[in-house]
Amino acid sequence: MGEELILLNFWPSMFGARVRIALKEKGLNYEEKEEDLPNKSPLLLEMNPVHKKIPVLIHNGKPICESLIIVQYIDEMWNDKAPLLPSDPYAKAQARFWADYIDQKLYNVCSIIVWKKSKEAEEGKEEMIEIFKVLEGALGYKPYFGGEAFGYVDIALIGFYMWFHAYETCGNFSIEAECPKIIAWAKRCLEREIVSKSLHDPNKVYDLVMNFRKKLGLD
Amino acid sequence: MGEELILLNFWPSMFGARVRIALKEKGLNYEEKEEDLPNKSPLLLEMNPVHKKIPVLIHNGKPICESLIIVQYIDEMWNDKAPLLPSDPYAKAQARFWADYIDQKLYNVCSIIVWKKSKEAEEGKEEMIEIFKVLEGALGYKPYFGGEAFGYVDIALIGFYMWFHAYETCGNFSIEAECPKIIAWAKRCLEREIVSKSLHDPNKVYDLVMNFRKKLGLD
Repeated sequence: MGEELILLNFWPSMFGARVRIALKEKGLNYEEKEEDLPNKSPLLLEMNPVHKKIPVLIHNGKPICESLIIVQYIDEMWNDKAPLLPSDPYAKAQARFWADYIDQKLYNVCSIIVWKKSKEAEEGKEEMIEIFKVLEGALGYKPYFGGEAFGYVDIALIGFYMWFHAYETCGNFSIEAECPKIIAWAKRCLEREIVSKSLHDPNKVYDLVMNFRKKLGLD
Repeated sequence: MGEELILLNFWPSMFGARVRIALKEKGLNYEEKEEDLPNKSPLLLEMNPVHKKIPVLIHNGKPICESLIIVQYIDEMWNDKAPLLPSDPYAKAQARFWADYIDQKLYNVCSIIVWKKSKEAEEGKEEMIEIFKVLEGALGYKPYFGGEAFGYVDIALIGFYMWFHAYETCGNFSIEAECPKIIAWAKRCLEREIVSKSLHDPNKVYDLVMNFRKKLGLD
């Protein structure tokens, strides 16, 4: 095919993990380039001049930015195998709704838990539990958010799993005790080799968080 | 067809305007139900229990929420005429990027200009001009964001036009003086009867803002 796919990423990013998983689900080869976020590469600044953020997928020299937009691009570009979004317009709208909910609600509260002092982190923890309970409602008794098949909403959410240990430690709570269906779902996703190979060890993210919290004087 | 389409809306909403325009572009008949936001209807709370926000499109009893998701749903559901998104995956990703940029960046700063006191509003004005300049760059010398045809990004942005007079008055600036290409683009969009009939008079929005600012003690 002569396709060149380059992923600009930062290893612990839950957003970058989405792109990794989508590319692997489609069986595509890609080169991942690690960004040093305090010193962003000229390539990143050239490819995403508006947001200057990872992940960016560069496909044959052309950039695609924003992780959910990248996942949809991959799904539409390589639409002959492993569909990530459902084909039915209503099911597709539902999938987009929940992925958008994750981006609107979950990321903010995650940052509060790991990068704020105890009182704010405590409120953040309560909000995170609420968000996970809403997501448990959306999951229902299905194995994956879209039903029987692993798909778009699963891809949108599973990258956060790398951070769960850090959230639990910083927030002093157990996600499994509060939201057992989310953990059961995450474990189900991790049984897929593509997913487990796309995510970094939560202990490695935990170490990163603890080191950075020390630098910020939070502990 | 026996299609029942109900739009839960609040008349000055730039997000609701997107749905109105998309429905009209597809030549669909719909019933618009006006929400009283301080006293949301049981129907809105039932149809959008997660965000409890307008607009909601109810298609044959099933709700679709979040304006950009609704516009994509309309485009995919009635795909036999008046395409709103391009069919090419890369062009589609670009359209999604700019619509998402509008939602991420523009709405916040709009709220600051109309609902905050002068110092914050002044900073908001500067940011709004920056955002419009970025959008002018994306527009380039094309008549519409997607090229020759009115489409998704135009639909995402044009609803804000109802508020321009209020932004200019509250922020004490002229959008046309700062960003003439945005105003020329807006006037081009308004030449389309579907657009002009979908938007309320900016003076009516201005009066609403002024009344509410008085209530908030901002003037």
